[in-house]
Amino acid sequence: MKSLVISAHPEPKSFNARLSSTAQRLLRERGHEVRGTDLYALDFDPRERGSHYHYRRDPDRFFVQDEQRFNHDGGSLPADVARQLDDLLWADLLVLQFPLWWFGVPAILKGWMDRVFVYGGMYSSRRRFDNGVCRGKRVLLSVTAGSSAEDCSPTGREGDTRLILWPILYSLHYVGFDVLEPVILYGIHGAHGGEDPRERDAHLAVQLSRFEQAMTTIDRLPTVPFNRDEDWDERGQLKPEAPSYSPFIRHAPPF
Amino acid sequence: MKSLVISAHPEPKSFNARLSSTAQRLLRERGHEVRGTDLYALDFDPRERGSHYHYRRDPDRFFVQDEQRFNHDGGSLPADVARQLDDLLWADLLVLQFPLWWFGVPAILKGWMDRVFVYGGMYSSRRRFDNGVCRGKRVLLSVTAGSSAEDCSPTGREGDTRLILWPILYSLHYVGFDVLEPVILYGIHGAHGGEDPRERDAHLAVQLSRFEQAMTTIDRLPTVPFNRDEDWDERGQLKPEAPSYSPFIRHAPPF
Repeated sequence: MKSLVISAHPEPKSFNARLSSTAQRLLRERGHEVRGTDLYALDFDPRERGSHYHYRRDPDRFFVQDEQRFNHDGGSLPADVARQLDDLLWADLLVLQFPLWWFGVPAILKGWMDRVFVYGGMYSSRRRFDNGVCRGKRVLLSVTAGSSAEDCSPTGREGDTRLILWPILYSLHYVGFDVLEPVILYGIHGAHGGEDPRERDAHLAVQLSRFEQAMTTIDRLPTVPFNRDEDWDERGQLKPEAPSYSPFIRHAPPF
Repeated sequence: MKSLVISAHPEPKSFNARLSSTAQRLLRERGHEVRGTDLYALDFDPRERGSHYHYRRDPDRFFVQDEQRFNHDGGSLPADVARQLDDLLWADLLVLQFPLWWFGVPAILKGWMDRVFVYGGMYSSRRRFDNGVCRGKRVLLSVTAGSSAEDCSPTGREGDTRLILWPILYSLHYVGFDVLEPVILYGIHGAHGGEDPRERDAHLAVQLSRFEQAMTTIDRLPTVPFNRDEDWDERGQLKPEAPSYSPFIRHAPPF
């Protein structure tokens, strides 16, 4: 088993960094071959743009998908992207470790998706969803949220974090991953929050233990259900008889 | 009326760039004072991290919120962030122009939020939602999607784009904006997609006209409804008698 742990936190002494190193250690102890990627340490540029490409199908106008496919097929992807893509295709299990910032992933991780999930290499109109390039691979989102579990519950003011992650989960399903139920640790924020340091440390210890439990039972974690290819008609519409597994599909619009 | 148009597309000749310049022109014609920001042209760095800060409350460990507040209060925010924040606080109307990439905003725009929505300046535990810093300001998301309107409908395989934008809309509500109903243009992709160029141009002309219609009627665009402050109890839970305006709050978990 080959595992890739990608982390997206700017502070090497952060709790996120500790979770990332813990994941790598526990996976190695389970016999996995493990690679770790710290996007901040790599200074990964999350901005997809024309200047990354030495060769261009159209030097005059940068169309993202065109240049991604052209450079993928021609073996001339930007070196940083090619390395990330190699790691991704190498791994059987991907762990994405990040803090929830503004109800989403940090920009450096969003840009990793924007740049590394290249058209022609990671997906095409024929290779996606059940027939996606990453079919048979698993992915786990390990997320820290500053707010409490209560605030992030389905009745809480921050909104249900598991649902807020849906656009990310669906992107990973799109490229073919089996998406594991995310591990979300709540109440994780800066050390200077005015709390009692002992209470904070006790809270972090409980959360770390929850995370370790998830990592040591990773082969038994449930997967997030998605609609399968056969649930869609030839026009990309959910068939009337199919259940919907997405909060965004056949959902009564709330606004 | 003061308007700020922020665009997040890497190609100056793109349809997104045309929408951005069209928005600025139409707003000026309505008598608005207009500022335009092209995040790619500015080479805006979307990666929030310690090295952006010359002064640090804690030089040893970078805690995002701590350093944002410390530097905001001390007047030592990074120059690029300070300029963006000045523009944001100057504007009555904000237009965010971007293509939908992987079911979300391009990384450069996510990082604009990560870095510019500074703790202490743009929000705090006491200044958010109905009491947010941007209270009384309006924001419009103008989004292009590569997929068809049918694929992006509530029954379509891409998921309902308006719902997929929810984490962004909620972030803008969090800092106090009145959030206008997003304008979403479908079927906008690269010029080399194998389509008939005349059909493509005709489609783009229709979409541009939809956009112009929205911009010239911007004072009559509906706002996205959100729960108000009084809908929440003292523990941040939606009161039983309150309706939910969020797909992520009091929503039966689909997985």
